[in-house]
Amino acid sequence: MIGRLNHVAIAVPDLEAAVAQYKNILGAEVTDPMDQPEHGVTVVFVELPNTKIEFLYPLGDKSPILNFLEKNPAGGIHHICYEVDDIIAARDKLVSDGARILGDGEPKNGAHNKPVLFLHPKDFCGTLVELEQA
Amino acid sequence: MIGRLNHVAIAVPDLEAAVAQYKNILGAEVTDPMDQPEHGVTVVFVELPNTKIEFLYPLGDKSPILNFLEKNPAGGIHHICYEVDDIIAARDKLVSDGARILGDGEPKNGAHNKPVLFLHPKDFCGTLVELEQA
Repeated sequence: MIGRLNHVAIAVPDLEAAVAQYKNILGAEVTDPMDQPEHGVTVVFVELPNTKIEFLYPLGDKSPILNFLEKNPAGGIHHICYEVDDIIAARDKLVSDGARILGDGEPKNGAHNKPVLFLHPKDFCGTLVELEQA
Repeated sequence: MIGRLNHVAIAVPDLEAAVAQYKNILGAEVTDPMDQPEHGVTVVFVELPNTKIEFLYPLGDKSPILNFLEKNPAGGIHHICYEVDDIIAARDKLVSDGARILGDGEPKNGAHNKPVLFLHPKDFCGTLVELEQA
């Protein structure tokens, strides 16, 4: 069912510092910051040859990553995202296997404007998993 | 400097459960467990089309992931690994840029029998980073 690793998302408390670490020290290609007010984050992508790292920086008072950064003040890996061909078929198989989908179970448009779902970390090794229809 | 994302390592408290989640529920290709007594872990790879997930399960009383699992009993992402062409050149640039290398600063042979170094999480967004000479 799962295909490529689409991205690893890292919540960062200081976006400029994160960009400098990856661009200047690790020598990676880094995009300009993009505000995504509908998701409550500013994102920056680190473009690797085979996948992406996505920096998430809080945007607004209700950003979904504020809690995470309170618990992890230095930042940390927030989630990993796998691609699937058909998000509804994936959702239905997951539910029938007893896995928990976060929220109301309906796919939402994610940061790449494609339908996504999030799976409960307790069902997948303590890791928040995003599925994105590729 | 950094190239491909070689793998994302997830420390797991129950290797059989992790394999079942990824093989049966997420439908991924999963290798057989491999004991690596010299690293204090049993590893399983989830083979994705573009990269790998590496499950780390403690092997022996002195496993380096026992502490992590004590703090994260459900498991969690332990580190991410980027490939570099020349680990000594990478190390020297990192040190000259003020980044901290864990241990004595000398590359060791990692889980894939290639020279690796680990970088201090505080210098890279709260994320433990492994560099592997590809």
